[in-house]
Amino acid sequence: MIYVIGIGPGSKELMTNEAISALEKSEVIVGYKTYINLVEEFIKDKEVVQNGMRKEIERCQDAIDKAKEGKEVAVISSGDSGIYGMAGLILELVTKQNLDIDVKIVPGVTASIGAAAVLGAPIMHDFCHISLSDLLTPWDVIEKRLKLAAEADFVICLYNPRSKGRKDHLKRAFEIMGEFKSDDIPVGIVKDVARDGQCKQVVKYKDIDFETVDMTTIVIIGNKSTYIHGDKMITPRGYVI
Amino acid sequence: MIYVIGIGPGSKELMTNEAISALEKSEVIVGYKTYINLVEEFIKDKEVVQNGMRKEIERCQDAIDKAKEGKEVAVISSGDSGIYGMAGLILELVTKQNLDIDVKIVPGVTASIGAAAVLGAPIMHDFCHISLSDLLTPWDVIEKRLKLAAEADFVICLYNPRSKGRKDHLKRAFEIMGEFKSDDIPVGIVKDVARDGQCKQVVKYKDIDFETVDMTTIVIIGNKSTYIHGDKMITPRGYVI
Repeated sequence: MIYVIGIGPGSKELMTNEAISALEKSEVIVGYKTYINLVEEFIKDKEVVQNGMRKEIERCQDAIDKAKEGKEVAVISSGDSGIYGMAGLILELVTKQNLDIDVKIVPGVTASIGAAAVLGAPIMHDFCHISLSDLLTPWDVIEKRLKLAAEADFVICLYNPRSKGRKDHLKRAFEIMGEFKSDDIPVGIVKDVARDGQCKQVVKYKDIDFETVDMTTIVIIGNKSTYIHGDKMITPRGYVI
Repeated sequence: MIYVIGIGPGSKELMTNEAISALEKSEVIVGYKTYINLVEEFIKDKEVVQNGMRKEIERCQDAIDKAKEGKEVAVISSGDSGIYGMAGLILELVTKQNLDIDVKIVPGVTASIGAAAVLGAPIMHDFCHISLSDLLTPWDVIEKRLKLAAEADFVICLYNPRSKGRKDHLKRAFEIMGEFKSDDIPVGIVKDVARDGQCKQVVKYKDIDFETVDMTTIVIIGNKSTYIHGDKMITPRGYVI
Protein backbone atom coordinates (compact mmCIF):
# COMPACT_ATOMS: atom_id res chain seq x y z
CA MET A 1 0.00 0.00 0.00
CA ILE A 2 1.19 3.51 -0.85
CA TYR A 3 -0.35 6.51 0.89
CA VAL A 4 0.32 9.67 -1.10
CA ILE A 5 -0.07 12.25 1.60
CA GLY A 6 -0.54 16.01 1.44
CA ILE A 7 0.91 17.25 4.72
CA GLY A 8 -0.51 20.78 4.37
CA PRO A 9 1.59 23.94 4.08
CA GLY A 10 3.85 23.20 7.03
CA SER A 11 2.44 23.16 10.53
CA LYS A 12 0.86 20.19 12.24
CA GLU A 13 -2.22 22.36 12.90
CA LEU A 14 -3.05 22.37 9.19
CA MET A 15 -2.66 18.62 8.72
CA THR A 16 -5.79 16.50 8.37
CA ASN A 17 -6.59 13.62 10.71
CA GLU A 18 -6.32 11.24 7.77
CA ALA A 19 -2.81 12.47 6.93
CA ILE A 20 -1.67 11.97 10.50
CA SER A 21 -3.10 8.46 10.78
CA ALA A 22 -1.65 7.46 7.38
CA LEU A 23 1.79 8.69 8.52
CA GLU A 24 1.45 6.75 11.75
CA LYS A 25 0.47 3.55 9.92
CA SER A 26 3.36 3.70 7.46
CA GLU A 27 6.61 1.80 7.84
CA VAL A 28 8.54 3.80 5.24
CA ILE A 29 8.37 7.57 4.66
CA VAL A 30 9.51 8.86 1.28
CA GLY A 31 9.93 12.53 0.46
CA TYR A 32 11.92 15.58 -0.49
CA LYS A 33 14.20 16.34 2.45
CA THR A 34 12.58 19.71 3.31
CA TYR A 35 9.22 17.98 3.73
CA ILE A 36 10.70 15.10 5.73
CA ASN A 37 11.88 17.74 8.22
CA LEU A 38 8.32 19.07 8.52
CA VAL A 39 6.98 15.69 9.68
CA GLU A 40 9.96 14.79 11.86
CA GLU A 41 7.80 14.03 14.89
CA PHE A 42 5.97 11.25 13.03
CA ILE A 43 9.12 9.48 11.87
CA LYS A 44 10.59 8.07 15.08
CA ASP A 45 12.06 4.68 14.12
CA LYS A 46 10.53 4.44 10.65
CA GLU A 47 12.60 3.90 7.52
CA VAL A 48 13.14 7.18 5.66
CA VAL A 49 13.93 7.62 1.96
CA GLN A 50 14.74 11.23 1.20
CA ASN A 51 16.48 13.03 -1.59
CA GLY A 52 16.77 16.44 -3.22
CA MET A 53 14.88 18.51 -5.78
CA ARG A 54 14.36 17.16 -9.31
CA LYS A 55 14.69 13.56 -8.06
CA GLU A 56 10.94 12.99 -8.12
CA ILE A 57 10.92 10.00 -10.47
CA GLU A 58 13.62 8.13 -8.51
CA ARG A 59 11.85 8.95 -5.26
CA CYS A 60 8.48 7.64 -6.46
CA GLN A 61 10.10 4.54 -7.95
CA ASP A 62 11.76 3.89 -4.59
CA ALA A 63 8.37 4.13 -2.91
CA ILE A 64 6.86 1.69 -5.42
CA ASP A 65 9.73 -0.75 -4.90
CA LYS A 66 9.22 -0.65 -1.13
CA ALA A 67 5.48 -1.26 -1.59
CA LYS A 68 6.27 -4.23 -3.85
CA GLU A 69 8.15 -5.71 -0.89
CA GLY A 70 4.84 -5.57 1.00
CA LYS A 71 5.63 -2.50 3.09
CA GLU A 72 3.21 0.27 4.01
CA VAL A 73 4.72 3.33 2.39
CA ALA A 74 3.96 7.04 2.79
CA VAL A 75 4.99 9.42 0.02
CA ILE A 76 4.70 12.97 1.28
CA SER A 77 4.12 16.24 -0.54
CA SER A 78 3.69 19.66 1.03
CA GLY A 79 0.22 21.13 0.63
CA ASP A 80 -2.03 18.71 -1.23
CA SER A 81 -0.39 15.73 -2.92
CA GLY A 82 -2.75 16.07 -5.89
CA ILE A 83 -1.80 19.68 -6.69
CA TYR A 84 1.70 19.87 -8.23
CA GLY A 85 2.56 17.05 -5.77
CA MET A 86 3.43 13.37 -6.04
CA ALA A 87 -0.07 11.85 -6.55
CA GLY A 88 0.13 12.13 -10.32
CA LEU A 89 3.60 10.69 -10.69
CA ILE A 90 2.88 7.73 -8.40
CA LEU A 91 -0.29 6.90 -10.33
CA GLU A 92 1.45 7.41 -13.68
CA LEU A 93 4.22 5.00 -12.71
CA VAL A 94 1.86 2.41 -11.20
CA THR A 95 -0.49 2.48 -14.20
CA LYS A 96 2.29 2.47 -16.85
CA GLN A 97 4.01 -0.44 -15.11
CA ASN A 98 0.66 -2.24 -14.75
CA LEU A 99 1.32 -2.90 -11.09
CA ASP A 100 -1.21 -4.26 -8.65
CA ILE A 101 -0.44 -1.92 -5.77
CA ASP A 102 -3.10 -0.10 -3.74
CA VAL A 103 -2.61 3.65 -3.84
CA LYS A 104 -4.54 5.90 -1.49
CA ILE A 105 -4.43 9.66 -2.10
CA VAL A 106 -4.73 11.53 1.21
CA PRO A 107 -5.78 15.14 0.57
CA GLY A 108 -4.28 18.19 2.25
CA VAL A 109 -4.61 21.97 2.49
CA THR A 110 -2.80 23.40 -0.53
CA ALA A 111 -0.62 26.51 -0.27
CA SER A 112 -3.12 28.86 -1.93
CA ILE A 113 -5.76 27.98 0.67
CA GLY A 114 -3.29 28.45 3.51
CA ALA A 115 -2.07 31.75 2.05
CA ALA A 116 -5.62 32.96 1.46
CA ALA A 117 -6.50 32.43 5.13
CA VAL A 118 -3.49 34.54 6.12
CA LEU A 119 -4.45 37.31 3.68
CA GLY A 120 -8.18 37.47 4.51
CA ALA A 121 -10.52 36.14 1.83
CA PRO A 122 -8.91 36.68 -1.59
CA ILE A 123 -10.13 33.49 -3.34
CA MET A 124 -13.83 33.87 -2.53
CA HIS A 125 -14.71 33.97 -6.22
CA ASP A 126 -13.71 31.89 -9.25
CA PHE A 127 -9.95 31.44 -9.27
CA CYS A 128 -7.15 29.50 -10.93
CA HIS A 129 -3.77 28.05 -10.11
CA ILE A 130 -0.86 28.56 -12.50
CA SER A 131 2.68 27.33 -11.85
CA LEU A 132 5.37 29.61 -13.31
CA SER A 133 7.91 26.79 -13.40
CA ASP A 134 8.77 25.85 -16.98
CA LEU A 135 10.75 22.77 -16.00
CA LEU A 136 7.82 20.54 -16.98
CA THR A 137 5.57 22.91 -18.96
CA PRO A 138 6.51 24.89 -22.08
CA TRP A 139 6.69 28.62 -21.29
CA ASP A 140 4.33 29.51 -24.17
CA VAL A 141 1.59 27.38 -22.54
CA ILE A 142 2.13 29.25 -19.28
CA GLU A 143 1.97 32.64 -21.07
CA LYS A 144 -1.25 31.68 -22.82
CA ARG A 145 -2.87 30.64 -19.53
CA LEU A 146 -1.77 33.84 -17.80
CA LYS A 147 -3.32 35.98 -20.54
CA LEU A 148 -6.62 34.08 -20.75
CA ALA A 149 -6.96 33.83 -16.95
CA ALA A 150 -6.46 37.58 -16.63
CA GLU A 151 -8.95 38.22 -19.44
CA ALA A 152 -11.48 35.98 -17.62
CA ASP A 153 -11.00 38.11 -14.48
CA PHE A 154 -10.11 35.07 -12.40
CA VAL A 155 -8.39 35.55 -9.09
CA ILE A 156 -4.99 34.06 -9.99
CA CYS A 157 -2.78 32.07 -7.61
CA LEU A 158 0.81 31.72 -8.79
CA TYR A 159 2.78 28.67 -7.59
CA ASN A 160 6.58 28.48 -8.00
CA PRO A 161 6.56 32.18 -8.84
CA ARG A 162 10.28 32.87 -8.90
CA SER A 163 13.49 30.91 -8.40
CA LYS A 164 17.18 31.65 -8.72
CA GLY A 165 17.16 30.14 -12.20
CA ARG A 166 13.95 31.90 -13.24
CA LYS A 167 14.30 35.39 -11.83
CA ASP A 168 12.34 37.13 -14.57
CA HIS A 169 9.33 34.81 -14.90
CA LEU A 170 7.23 36.69 -12.38
CA LYS A 171 7.95 40.11 -13.92
CA ARG A 172 7.08 38.72 -17.36
CA ALA A 173 3.88 37.19 -15.94
CA PHE A 174 2.86 40.56 -14.52
CA GLU A 175 3.48 42.20 -17.92
CA ILE A 176 1.22 39.64 -19.62
CA MET A 177 -1.57 39.80 -17.02
CA GLY A 178 -1.26 43.60 -17.01
CA GLU A 179 -3.21 43.75 -20.29
CA PHE A 180 -6.31 42.96 -18.19
CA LYS A 181 -5.28 43.45 -14.54
CA SER A 182 -5.23 47.16 -13.70
CA ASP A 183 -2.55 48.94 -11.66
CA ASP A 184 -4.79 49.13 -8.59
CA ILE A 185 -5.79 45.46 -8.33
CA PRO A 186 -4.73 44.05 -4.95
CA VAL A 187 -1.97 41.46 -4.81
CA GLY A 188 -1.29 39.27 -1.79
CA ILE A 189 2.12 37.73 -1.21
CA VAL A 190 2.71 35.13 1.48
CA LYS A 191 6.07 33.54 2.14
CA ASP A 192 6.44 30.30 4.11
CA VAL A 193 2.74 29.77 4.88
CA ALA A 194 2.30 28.09 8.28
CA ARG A 195 6.06 27.69 8.70
CA ASP A 196 8.63 29.50 10.81
CA GLY A 197 9.13 33.01 9.47
CA GLN A 198 5.76 33.23 7.72
CA CYS A 199 5.33 36.76 6.36
CA LYS A 200 2.78 38.50 4.18
CA GLN A 201 2.32 41.65 2.12
CA VAL A 202 -0.78 43.14 0.52
CA VAL A 203 0.08 45.64 -2.23
CA LYS A 204 -1.36 47.11 -5.41
CA TYR A 205 -0.53 45.43 -8.72
CA LYS A 206 1.80 48.22 -9.81
CA ASP A 207 3.70 48.21 -6.51
CA ILE A 208 4.84 44.59 -6.28
CA ASP A 209 8.53 44.19 -5.53
CA PHE A 210 9.53 41.05 -7.41
CA GLU A 211 12.69 40.76 -5.31
CA THR A 212 10.63 39.84 -2.25
CA VAL A 213 9.26 36.72 -3.96
CA ASP A 214 10.94 33.32 -4.06
CA MET A 215 10.06 29.62 -4.50
CA THR A 216 8.41 29.27 -1.09
CA THR A 217 6.10 32.22 -1.77
CA ILE A 218 2.54 32.20 -3.07
CA VAL A 219 1.32 35.23 -5.04
CA ILE A 220 -2.44 35.86 -5.31
CA ILE A 221 -3.74 38.48 -7.76
CA GLY A 222 -7.28 39.72 -7.11
CA ASN A 223 -10.17 40.21 -9.54
CA LYS A 224 -11.88 43.50 -10.44
CA SER A 225 -13.90 43.50 -7.20
CA THR A 226 -11.08 42.64 -4.78
CA TYR A 227 -10.29 45.34 -2.23
CA ILE A 228 -7.82 46.03 0.55
CA HIS A 229 -8.96 46.90 4.07
CA GLY A 230 -6.15 47.43 6.56
CA ASP A 231 -3.87 44.44 6.07
CA LYS A 232 -6.66 42.27 4.64
CA MET A 233 -7.35 41.34 1.00
CA ILE A 234 -11.02 40.60 0.35
CA THR A 235 -12.76 39.40 -2.81
CA PRO A 236 -16.53 39.82 -2.43
CA ARG A 237 -18.70 36.79 -3.21
CA GLY A 238 -21.39 39.08 -4.59
CA TYR A 239 -23.78 39.55 -1.66
CA VAL A 240 -25.54 42.92 -1.49
CA ILE A 241 -24.84 44.16 2.03
CA MET B 1 -13.36 36.41 18.38
CA ILE B 2 -14.84 34.77 15.30
CA TYR B 3 -13.29 31.61 13.87
CA VAL B 4 -14.40 31.13 10.28
CA ILE B 5 -13.82 27.43 9.92
CA GLY B 6 -13.61 25.21 6.86
CA ILE B 7 -14.69 21.79 8.13
CA GLY B 8 -13.56 19.93 5.00
CA PRO B 9 -15.85 18.01 2.65
CA GLY B 10 -17.66 16.07 5.36
CA SER B 11 -15.81 13.47 7.37
CA LYS B 12 -13.85 14.13 10.54
CA GLU B 13 -10.85 12.43 8.87
CA LEU B 14 -10.50 15.35 6.46
CA MET B 15 -10.72 18.08 9.11
CA THR B 16 -7.55 19.87 10.12
CA ASN B 17 -6.28 19.93 13.68
CA GLU B 18 -6.78 23.69 13.72
CA ALA B 19 -10.44 23.34 12.70
CA ILE B 20 -11.07 20.83 15.48
CA SER B 21 -9.41 22.93 18.15
CA ALA B 22 -11.23 26.08 17.00
CA LEU B 23 -14.56 24.23 17.19
CA GLU B 24 -13.68 22.98 20.67
CA LYS B 25 -12.75 26.48 21.88
CA SER B 26 -15.94 28.10 20.60
CA GLU B 27 -18.99 28.82 22.72
CA VAL B 28 -21.37 29.43 19.82
CA ILE B 29 -21.50 27.51 16.52
CA VAL B 30 -23.14 29.23 13.57
CA GLY B 31 -23.89 27.53 10.28
CA TYR B 32 -26.17 26.20 7.61
CA LYS B 33 -28.09 23.30 9.13
CA THR B 34 -26.59 20.61 6.85
CA TYR B 35 -23.10 21.59 8.00
CA ILE B 36 -24.12 21.76 11.67
CA ASN B 37 -25.13 18.09 11.34
CA LEU B 38 -21.65 17.24 10.03
CA VAL B 39 -19.97 18.58 13.20
CA GLU B 40 -22.57 17.29 15.65
CA GLU B 41 -20.02 15.55 17.84
CA PHE B 42 -18.27 18.87 18.60
CA ILE B 43 -21.42 20.69 19.62
CA LYS B 44 -22.39 19.02 22.94
CA ASP B 45 -23.75 21.82 25.11
CA LYS B 46 -22.68 24.73 22.93
CA GLU B 47 -25.10 27.36 21.67
CA VAL B 48 -26.08 26.69 18.05
CA VAL B 49 -27.35 29.22 15.53
CA GLN B 50 -28.47 27.48 12.35
CA ASN B 51 -30.66 28.38 9.46
CA GLY B 52 -31.36 27.46 5.86
CA MET B 53 -29.96 28.26 2.44
CA ARG B 54 -29.83 31.87 1.21
CA LYS B 55 -29.76 33.16 4.79
CA GLU B 56 -26.01 33.79 4.72
CA ILE B 57 -26.13 37.49 5.57
CA GLU B 58 -28.42 37.01 8.57
CA ARG B 59 -26.30 34.07 9.75
CA CYS B 60 -23.05 36.03 9.57
CA GLN B 61 -24.64 39.06 11.23
CA ASP B 62 -25.83 36.78 14.05
CA ALA B 63 -22.26 35.54 14.47
CA ILE B 64 -20.95 39.10 14.60
CA ASP B 65 -23.56 40.08 17.18
CA LYS B 66 -22.57 37.13 19.38
CA ALA B 67 -18.90 38.11 19.07
CA LYS B 68 -19.78 41.68 20.06
CA GLU B 69 -21.16 40.21 23.30
CA GLY B 70 -17.68 38.87 23.95
CA LYS B 71 -18.36 35.28 22.96
CA GLU B 72 -16.02 32.94 21.10
CA VAL B 73 -17.92 32.17 17.91
CA ALA B 74 -17.33 29.56 15.20
CA VAL B 75 -18.86 30.13 11.78
CA ILE B 76 -18.63 26.93 9.78
CA SER B 77 -18.50 26.30 6.04
CA SER B 78 -18.07 22.97 4.33
CA GLY B 79 -14.77 22.53 2.49
CA ASP B 80 -12.63 25.65 2.90
CA SER B 81 -14.30 28.74 4.37
CA GLY B 82 -12.37 30.98 1.96
CA ILE B 83 -13.64 29.23 -1.21
CA TYR B 84 -17.30 30.09 -1.87
CA GLY B 85 -17.67 29.93 1.95
CA MET B 86 -18.33 32.40 4.74
CA ALA B 87 -14.86 33.97 5.15
CA GLY B 88 -15.54 36.71 2.62
CA LEU B 89 -18.95 37.68 3.95
CA ILE B 90 -17.76 37.83 7.56
CA LEU B 91 -14.81 40.04 6.59
CA GLU B 92 -17.00 42.20 4.34
CA LEU B 93 -19.48 42.81 7.15
CA VAL B 94 -16.79 43.42 9.80
CA THR B 95 -14.86 45.85 7.57
CA LYS B 96 -17.95 47.72 6.29
CA GLN B 97 -19.25 48.12 9.84
CA ASN B 98 -15.78 49.17 11.03
CA LEU B 99 -15.91 46.72 13.90
CA ASP B 100 -12.99 45.87 16.14
CA ILE B 101 -13.53 42.10 16.23
CA ASP B 102 -10.76 39.56 15.74
CA VAL B 103 -11.48 37.23 12.84
CA LYS B 104 -9.41 34.10 12.32
CA ILE B 105 -9.83 32.20 9.07
CA VAL B 106 -9.22 28.47 9.63
CA PRO B 107 -8.48 26.74 6.31
CA GLY B 108 -9.92 23.43 5.19
CA VAL B 109 -9.80 20.87 2.39
CA THR B 110 -12.07 22.19 -0.36
CA ALA B 111 -14.39 19.87 -2.32
CA SER B 112 -12.28 19.84 -5.49
CA ILE B 113 -9.27 18.55 -3.54
CA GLY B 114 -11.37 15.90 -1.82
CA ALA B 115 -12.97 14.87 -5.11
CA ALA B 116 -9.60 14.78 -6.87
CA ALA B 117 -8.23 12.34 -4.29
CA VAL B 118 -11.21 10.05 -4.91
CA LEU B 119 -10.75 10.23 -8.69
CA GLY B 120 -6.96 9.73 -8.78
CA ALA B 121 -4.91 12.79 -9.72
CA PRO B 122 -6.98 14.99 -12.07
CA ILE B 123 -5.79 18.43 -10.85
CA MET B 124 -2.06 17.80 -11.12
CA HIS B 125 -1.67 20.64 -13.61
CA ASP B 126 -2.93 24.23 -13.77
CA PHE B 127 -6.63 24.30 -12.94
CA CYS B 128 -9.49 26.62 -12.11
CA HIS B 129 -12.64 26.70 -10.04
CA ILE B 130 -15.86 28.04 -11.55
CA SER B 131 -19.20 28.11 -9.74
CA LEU B 132 -22.18 27.63 -12.05
CA SER B 133 -24.54 29.32 -9.59
CA ASP B 134 -25.80 32.62 -10.99
CA LEU B 135 -27.46 33.69 -7.75
CA LEU B 136 -24.55 36.06 -7.01
CA THR B 137 -22.71 36.21 -10.36
CA PRO B 138 -24.18 37.31 -13.72
CA TRP B 139 -24.49 34.34 -16.08
CA ASP B 140 -22.59 36.14 -18.86
CA VAL B 141 -19.54 36.41 -16.57
CA ILE B 142 -19.74 32.66 -15.91
CA GLU B 143 -20.03 31.91 -19.65
CA LYS B 144 -17.01 34.08 -20.41
CA ARG B 145 -14.92 32.30 -17.78
CA LEU B 146 -15.97 28.85 -19.03
CA LYS B 147 -14.93 29.73 -22.58
CA LEU B 148 -11.58 31.29 -21.67
CA ALA B 149 -10.73 28.54 -19.17
CA ALA B 150 -11.40 25.88 -21.80
CA GLU B 151 -9.36 27.82 -24.37
CA ALA B 152 -6.47 27.97 -21.84
CA ASP B 153 -6.67 24.17 -21.47
CA PHE B 154 -7.10 24.43 -17.70
CA VAL B 155 -8.40 21.45 -15.78
CA ILE B 156 -11.79 22.89 -14.77
CA CYS B 157 -13.54 22.18 -11.46
CA LEU B 158 -17.23 23.09 -11.45
CA TYR B 159 -18.84 23.96 -8.12
CA ASN B 160 -22.64 24.17 -7.72
CA PRO B 161 -22.96 22.48 -11.11
CA ARG B 162 -26.69 21.84 -11.19
CA SER B 163 -29.68 22.50 -8.94
CA LYS B 164 -33.42 22.08 -9.23
CA GLY B 165 -33.76 25.71 -10.22
CA ARG B 166 -30.83 25.60 -12.67
CA LYS B 167 -31.19 22.30 -14.42
CA ASP B 168 -29.72 23.43 -17.74
CA HIS B 169 -26.63 25.32 -16.54
CA LEU B 170 -24.35 22.31 -16.70
CA LYS B 171 -25.48 21.31 -20.19
CA ARG B 172 -24.99 24.88 -21.37
CA ALA B 173 -21.54 24.97 -19.72
CA PHE B 174 -20.55 21.80 -21.58
CA GLU B 175 -21.71 23.34 -24.88
CA ILE B 176 -19.53 26.40 -24.25
CA MET B 177 -16.44 24.48 -23.12
CA GLY B 178 -16.98 22.05 -26.01
CA GLU B 179 -15.49 24.61 -28.40
CA PHE B 180 -12.09 23.67 -26.91
CA LYS B 181 -12.66 20.48 -24.88
CA SER B 182 -12.83 17.48 -27.22
CA ASP B 183 -15.32 14.61 -26.97
CA ASP B 184 -12.73 12.26 -25.50
CA ILE B 185 -11.48 14.44 -22.63
CA PRO B 186 -12.00 12.66 -19.29
CA VAL B 187 -14.55 14.03 -16.86
CA GLY B 188 -14.70 13.04 -13.20
CA ILE B 189 -17.91 13.35 -11.21
CA VAL B 190 -17.99 12.89 -7.45
CA LYS B 191 -21.14 13.17 -5.37
CA ASP B 192 -21.04 13.68 -1.60
CA VAL B 193 -17.25 13.65 -1.20
CA ALA B 194 -16.26 12.11 2.15
CA ARG B 195 -19.91 11.83 3.21
CA ASP B 196 -22.29 8.88 3.47
CA GLY B 197 -23.19 7.66 0.00
CA GLN B 198 -20.08 9.06 -1.72
CA CYS B 199 -20.04 7.91 -5.34
CA LYS B 200 -17.91 8.66 -8.37
CA GLN B 201 -17.92 8.28 -12.14
CA VAL B 202 -15.15 8.77 -14.68
CA VAL B 203 -16.50 9.27 -18.21
CA LYS B 204 -15.59 10.87 -21.51
CA TYR B 205 -16.74 14.44 -22.18
CA LYS B 206 -19.36 13.38 -24.71
CA ASP B 207 -20.80 10.72 -22.39
CA ILE B 208 -21.68 12.76 -19.32
CA ASP B 209 -25.22 12.21 -18.06
CA PHE B 210 -26.26 15.58 -16.68
CA GLU B 211 -29.11 13.96 -14.74
CA THR B 212 -26.60 12.29 -12.38
CA VAL B 213 -25.27 15.68 -11.22
CA ASP B 214 -26.74 17.81 -8.44
CA MET B 215 -25.69 20.52 -5.98
CA THR B 216 -23.58 18.22 -3.80
CA THR B 217 -21.58 17.01 -6.80
CA ILE B 218 -18.21 18.25 -8.06
CA VAL B 219 -17.46 17.94 -11.77
CA ILE B 220 -13.82 17.98 -12.92
CA ILE B 221 -13.00 18.29 -16.62
CA GLY B 222 -9.50 17.24 -17.64
CA ASN B 223 -6.98 18.98 -19.90
CA LYS B 224 -5.61 17.71 -23.22
CA SER B 225 -3.20 15.31 -21.46
CA THR B 226 -5.60 13.82 -18.93
CA TYR B 227 -6.21 10.09 -19.33
CA ILE B 228 -8.36 7.35 -17.81
CA HIS B 229 -6.82 4.16 -16.44
CA GLY B 230 -9.31 1.72 -14.92
CA ASP B 231 -11.44 3.86 -12.63
CA LYS B 232 -8.74 6.51 -12.20
CA MET B 233 -8.48 9.94 -13.84
CA ILE B 234 -4.89 11.15 -14.15
CA THR B 235 -3.49 14.45 -15.41
CA PRO B 236 0.26 14.12 -15.99
CA ARG B 237 2.47 16.79 -14.43
CA GLY B 238 4.84 16.58 -17.39
CA TYR B 239 7.54 14.14 -16.25
CA VAL B 240 9.10 11.98 -18.97
CA ILE B 241 8.77 8.45 -17.63
